[in-house]
Amino acid sequence: MNLRMVFYTTGRIVLFEALMLMLPAVVSLIYGESCFYAFLIAVFVAAVLGGILFFAAKPKDSVIYAKEGFLTVALAWITLSAIGALPFTISGEIPSYIDSFFETVSGFTTTGASILTDVEAMSHGLLFWRSFTHWVGGMGVLVFVMAVIPDMSDRSIHIMRAEMPGPIIGKLVPKVKETAKILYLIYIVMTLVQILFLLFGGMSLFDSLVHAFGTAGTGGFGIKADSVTSYSPYLQWVIAIFMLIFGVNFNLYYLILVKRIKSAVTSTELWVYVLIVGASTLAITVNILPIVGTVGDSIRTALFQVSSIITTTGYATADFNLWPGFSKGILLILMFIGGCAGSTAGGLKVSRVIILFKMIRGEIKRMIHPRSVSVVRFEGKQLEENTLGSVSLYFAIYMVCFFAVFLLLCFEPFDMETNFTAAASCFNNVGPGLGGVGPMSSYAAYSPFSKLLLSFAMLLGRLEIFPLIIALSPSTWAKK
Amino acid sequence: MNLRMVFYTTGRIVLFEALMLMLPAVVSLIYGESCFYAFLIAVFVAAVLGGILFFAAKPKDSVIYAKEGFLTVALAWITLSAIGALPFTISGEIPSYIDSFFETVSGFTTTGASILTDVEAMSHGLLFWRSFTHWVGGMGVLVFVMAVIPDMSDRSIHIMRAEMPGPIIGKLVPKVKETAKILYLIYIVMTLVQILFLLFGGMSLFDSLVHAFGTAGTGGFGIKADSVTSYSPYLQWVIAIFMLIFGVNFNLYYLILVKRIKSAVTSTELWVYVLIVGASTLAITVNILPIVGTVGDSIRTALFQVSSIITTTGYATADFNLWPGFSKGILLILMFIGGCAGSTAGGLKVSRVIILFKMIRGEIKRMIHPRSVSVVRFEGKQLEENTLGSVSLYFAIYMVCFFAVFLLLCFEPFDMETNFTAAASCFNNVGPGLGGVGPMSSYAAYSPFSKLLLSFAMLLGRLEIFPLIIALSPSTWAKK
Repeated sequence: MNLRMVFYTTGRIVLFEALMLMLPAVVSLIYGESCFYAFLIAVFVAAVLGGILFFAAKPKDSVIYAKEGFLTVALAWITLSAIGALPFTISGEIPSYIDSFFETVSGFTTTGASILTDVEAMSHGLLFWRSFTHWVGGMGVLVFVMAVIPDMSDRSIHIMRAEMPGPIIGKLVPKVKETAKILYLIYIVMTLVQILFLLFGGMSLFDSLVHAFGTAGTGGFGIKADSVTSYSPYLQWVIAIFMLIFGVNFNLYYLILVKRIKSAVTSTELWVYVLIVGASTLAITVNILPIVGTVGDSIRTALFQVSSIITTTGYATADFNLWPGFSKGILLILMFIGGCAGSTAGGLKVSRVIILFKMIRGEIKRMIHPRSVSVVRFEGKQLEENTLGSVSLYFAIYMVCFFAVFLLLCFEPFDMETNFTAAASCFNNVGPGLGGVGPMSSYAAYSPFSKLLLSFAMLLGRLEIFPLIIALSPSTWAKK
Repeated sequence: MNLRMVFYTTGRIVLFEALMLMLPAVVSLIYGESCFYAFLIAVFVAAVLGGILFFAAKPKDSVIYAKEGFLTVALAWITLSAIGALPFTISGEIPSYIDSFFETVSGFTTTGASILTDVEAMSHGLLFWRSFTHWVGGMGVLVFVMAVIPDMSDRSIHIMRAEMPGPIIGKLVPKVKETAKILYLIYIVMTLVQILFLLFGGMSLFDSLVHAFGTAGTGGFGIKADSVTSYSPYLQWVIAIFMLIFGVNFNLYYLILVKRIKSAVTSTELWVYVLIVGASTLAITVNILPIVGTVGDSIRTALFQVSSIITTTGYATADFNLWPGFSKGILLILMFIGGCAGSTAGGLKVSRVIILFKMIRGEIKRMIHPRSVSVVRFEGKQLEENTLGSVSLYFAIYMVCFFAVFLLLCFEPFDMETNFTAAASCFNNVGPGLGGVGPMSSYAAYSPFSKLLLSFAMLLGRLEIFPLIIALSPSTWAKK
């Protein structure tokens, strides 16, 4: 076990967080807010802790394997959140440190679940920081670091694989660092485009920045009590469409960039994703028509919540908690499906769902015609037995983890709808649930234990389970 | 496709149902109830329909394959339920035929979910029939038929495999018919022993028969409004323990019979089953102590509901709907786990859960040590890749089917707890759920559409999904 390398990399990432924290410090300075000092303290803590880890742990041997990669990811995300939570508590705006930790984990994991009961009372600096964590977490903190720091070599593929969502992480170009750079470039440009669209619709610069961060990272922290309900229909359309865009596999954008447009638009995952969004929007539109009134409003409202939930963003333009059960049922299932692999979205991922369904079809065929041989093809390639086994097992692990979180959450005195959807929403990095944690409510009522549990669930979901489980597994720490 | 053989076998089973229906007819005659005539009509219908299928479809070629086996199972269970529902409607005691169909499917699938709002008003004949369907369905109608009708040959293994629950159906002895006979002998003897224990505790003969049928089949139809709450603690203990006994793999009893006791008591599945029951009972005992009062009562109450739910029986000695969320959460998870493979219980089955967990452990090990080779051993044998793949895929199919049923049930105006647990309870053949379908409530409030949907879910769960899906799959009916 190359623990020095784990600490060294974590130190580098924490140093980077010190830089990141300067941005909201500037924002708070512009608005003349006292939380400026809270940010300064956090910058100091991050710099000192990061510096110690970075310099003291400087490794002789930089070789790492999957194990160290997973450990780094687990340690880095927890440390980042622990430090990122400081400004909330130091400024006094979120007095409880556990609440602040929950909020920051929710930010970095792009969940968007909040314990704030009055978000509009928060200072600009902290609101900016909250949404900025979405943006950084969306593409993956470590990928970010890889893209900007010079001497990371190809061994980082272990880290990147552990962090990038979805079953198929293609390296776009031979060098990992180059891949990370390309991905972040696409990410930055698309975020800028969204900001321009929002500004064009009359949204203020601050609001545009914050909502673009939340959309790009598929996070969903809002800055109004009613999420984005009070913005104009135009702005709602912009956010709905950009949520969908950020829920697509970024590899496709790269393919378009290098003019391999045909490969991009024939992606099975893309079309299934579009199909699920279309079918869900249609079903919900019909279902909520009697409540909403006009067809146009119903379509916009249905599409917005469908985009928001399937991409696991979590913005809302309606209190879908008051919708008929059928629409709520669809949204609950969309939470588990999630966005495309290789996007910033959470959930199981559309590609996994497709592969699972293809495997199920194959199994049924094999039962009807026992001597037939069935192969599963996806995106034009025949999948290996190994990949197939991993996908179905991942699903099993996923459900086991989810039910474990749900069971522990049942100690809370809330109804089952609340606890079940709270677990589902946090685990899938969505944000709002139903019942007591609906889009117009918050997680404030949960006990500190449950807030830590849900923070763990958010990390589990965001890091696709293995890093945390491997960090906690005795087998990782066993001496050979 | 040998459709003649499918109809022929179904005809034989329906003829057999005519015989079965004579039993409750006798009961109603003894009690001087008018439902006697309803049973006579049902016997007539079964005899005529069964006779037509049996004689008209007499096949030239008796060779069948898995496909025909699955189809026979699907067709037989639906036909049996359709005919078995007649006495309820003809007698006027359950006026709606869809309600009667639901009740009969619930009986044969050993679910025990009821649409009756006043079970105590029912005649003895119909109560007897309801519980008798549990007993027949418990071991599998077709296995029953195989055991008693002379000329079924070894080709029936296809039918038996499609019907017997659990991943590993061992033939106990070389001849299928012999295996079926042995299983039914064990089943009958254990049922008789339970009847004796109940009679000894002062229960009336009728009540003893009905409850032994419901316990043996892990069905759970009660004959009192409060299920078995009003019976003495002794009787509750007897039922609790017999539920657990019928939830064990029957192969183990055979092993004990042939003096291979060591193989029986070293079964991994048995011990995990005991462990789950013990741990759940302990957790619930502590959790409900403040409500129940004394430790003794808490243990009895906890063990009873745990036995009842994990074996998917569904009897109740407490309104667990009023229990704390944590206890309800445990019960919900137990619904999905279910009893042991090769028992009369429903659910995923303990053996599948064990195999899934072993596979998950293997996958995590493989991630930590990528070059390690992990094999999954179960009951002393190394499992083949094929079996492992089937188990994890079965889990995926299971969850997909469950969520599909749940989503369609969401059209109902009930809260999510009610719809979710109604779907879970019917699909896992338990019976009661939580919320509006708690142990002291019924499914009466559901719409006819939902009752048919839940009937389908019960059959799906009981027949382990494939027979119904294969019957509905275009690939089955495609001409080569």
